[in-house]
Amino acid sequence: MKFEDFEEKTVKRETLFSGHIIELAVDDVRLPNGEMAKRELVFHNGAVGIIALTEDKRIILVKQFRKPLEKVILEIPAGKIDTTDGDRLETAQRELEEETGFQAEDWEFLFEFSSAPGFTNEILAIYQATGLKKVDNPLPQDEDELIELHALTLKEAKAAMAAGEIYDGKTILAIQHWELMELRGK
Amino acid sequence: MKFEDFEEKTVKRETLFSGHIIELAVDDVRLPNGEMAKRELVFHNGAVGIIALTEDKRIILVKQFRKPLEKVILEIPAGKIDTTDGDRLETAQRELEEETGFQAEDWEFLFEFSSAPGFTNEILAIYQATGLKKVDNPLPQDEDELIELHALTLKEAKAAMAAGEIYDGKTILAIQHWELMELRGK
Repeated sequence: MKFEDFEEKTVKRETLFSGHIIELAVDDVRLPNGEMAKRELVFHNGAVGIIALTEDKRIILVKQFRKPLEKVILEIPAGKIDTTDGDRLETAQRELEEETGFQAEDWEFLFEFSSAPGFTNEILAIYQATGLKKVDNPLPQDEDELIELHALTLKEAKAAMAAGEIYDGKTILAIQHWELMELRGK
Repeated sequence: MKFEDFEEKTVKRETLFSGHIIELAVDDVRLPNGEMAKRELVFHNGAVGIIALTEDKRIILVKQFRKPLEKVILEIPAGKIDTTDGDRLETAQRELEEETGFQAEDWEFLFEFSSAPGFTNEILAIYQATGLKKVDNPLPQDEDELIELHALTLKEAKAAMAAGEIYDGKTILAIQHWELMELRGK
């Protein structure tokens, strides 16, 4: 089937909330068979995540509280893009420095993905950062972010996954990607 | 640091929307340093995804339109849990049959993860289903879901990832998990 055979066309959109991070809308859509349905949509500018690897093969992770989960988890450094057309690499470079105090000499875009395609348009772009060095006077952390730094080997990261301390999609994707690189001998 | 050193306590919660899929709230939270901040929260009952593998080493994927992305993408079969205490394995078994017409003899829970911990509590539980057989009279598809079935080899799935046809976190996690299993010789 072609795109047209699947497409759900918006007949009416009602925007119910515009916040700092997300916007909520409900669309009335016409299905390909002519029937109508409702779609609940969470709009987000998108975000970046960074696989930052040290020379001794450790990944830099940040431990922080996540209110939606009411949990403290270990994640790759990440942050949202300020505007819908914000530069992703610049965002990644800024977030790495703000959250970890590191700058990186080498940046490589790895892949992007939709975090939850059933209800949000959030896209995450994943970068690899190597050639890390600590900055003397790094960009300050966001005032409302409390972050603890960790540097884990692959084995430690896999143990943290098994223990549920690493718990979010982008970070599990990052660890799997790293393990695949290692197994392929790259 | 301990959990208490990170925790953001809700002082006030305002629920702004209750839909069929999601609920939206804004919390006023007290940070560990005593300052106040706002948190935008999307509540979701959680969902399941299924890595369904055939005997000839193909993964069953469903092609469908995703309104938040305005795109048609290839995903592992998945679906949301009806109630906050809904059974995940039963949901996985029902969704596999509804979306693909397959039942599976063997089910194994693999892992769970948070799809977007910055703003939602959605947790995805991933199961592996093997021993697949087509059902004569499967559960009907949801009326507002239009689905096309695909069965891809690992090589084809990796090509679909590279082409952006496989584009969502849970499906990329599934393909990476499958490749790791193959490389480890399991």
